[in-house]
Amino acid sequence: MSSSAATGPRRLGRPGHDSASVLAVAVRVFNERGYDGTSMEDLARALGLSKSAIYHHVSGKQELLRRSLDRALDALFAVTEEEPARTGPAVDRLEHVLRGSVRVLVAELPHVTLLLRVRGNTEVEREALRRRRAFDRFVAELVRRGVEEGDVRPDIDPALTSRLLFGMVNSIAEWYRPGGRTGTEQLVAGATTLAFAGLRRG
Amino acid sequence: MSSSAATGPRRLGRPGHDSASVLAVAVRVFNERGYDGTSMEDLARALGLSKSAIYHHVSGKQELLRRSLDRALDALFAVTEEEPARTGPAVDRLEHVLRGSVRVLVAELPHVTLLLRVRGNTEVEREALRRRRAFDRFVAELVRRGVEEGDVRPDIDPALTSRLLFGMVNSIAEWYRPGGRTGTEQLVAGATTLAFAGLRRG
Repeated sequence: MSSSAATGPRRLGRPGHDSASVLAVAVRVFNERGYDGTSMEDLARALGLSKSAIYHHVSGKQELLRRSLDRALDALFAVTEEEPARTGPAVDRLEHVLRGSVRVLVAELPHVTLLLRVRGNTEVEREALRRRRAFDRFVAELVRRGVEEGDVRPDIDPALTSRLLFGMVNSIAEWYRPGGRTGTEQLVAGATTLAFAGLRRG
Repeated sequence: MSSSAATGPRRLGRPGHDSASVLAVAVRVFNERGYDGTSMEDLARALGLSKSAIYHHVSGKQELLRRSLDRALDALFAVTEEEPARTGPAVDRLEHVLRGSVRVLVAELPHVTLLLRVRGNTEVEREALRRRRAFDRFVAELVRRGVEEGDVRPDIDPALTSRLLFGMVNSIAEWYRPGGRTGTEQLVAGATTLAFAGLRRG
């Protein structure tokens, strides 16, 4: 529509943009306007770059989406590969994954926020949804084993437990802001205690 | 843009629409396309009505938004007015509000879903956000009193407990479909047990 980004004073681009900062700005804009509602013109304007300067960094907005979603998902899967997520009683492995997931959410907040909004309109989004489901299955399997091992209460359906558990974790993305009054470890401890011990005093 | 809804074969409207069914269809479209992304043309198309026939029922899309958000919020506030939410130990009152909120979420799913997506772009949305915050304060106050009365664990900040608790409840709107494998009361029991007793077996 408008070619002002290519012809205006920003034509030469602001100095100092690398691929990482292009990604950071793009994800902020995606979260503000929605991925579908963001054009390359919008990104160019937010970055103070011409469109051709953006294409120097990435092949298009789909690549930026893929890199953002991969960043969130790679970090979540890395937690499931850690030793305490792989060995020991399932309930402890589950707790490790829950703690790790809250930390990933805080550390990669914009990317996780974008991931949680993905609805599957493009192949990149569908691939991200497939990876999310694989993560959910990993968690649900830990809950099931925890029930079998006698450490997780058997009176809630394991699939329901998993959904409620990670529904609680994911909801943090809607209000948490780093640097606010709740520190990361306070958040991790609060979510873990509530999920595993409940709020009613024993 | 297009006037096909007014000039095409749907001009006279389909029979059987009343204010309630207009609201139901409108809310479905708002949830699919986003409120900001929905035009009166979109609503006319989904309803099979002309725009003027819609104006027979409502003053515009803002009124539909307000009626939907009020329906969700009125149902939630009705729970806080019930006797068991007003008398007795705070922890039990909190449990009553949590159970009632899950039931409202299921009973008014499209309206609660819309409410949870409100970002405050219009005065109607800002009013809904003010009411949501009042509901959140009611819950947080119950958590605080529960701690004072010795029934709620004191090692999580009450504001954090409230957020996590209702983050979990609200997340149900993202996946729950009435008529699926999880019944309403199973959902209510699962969420309540997880929140109050935790998943780890005592």
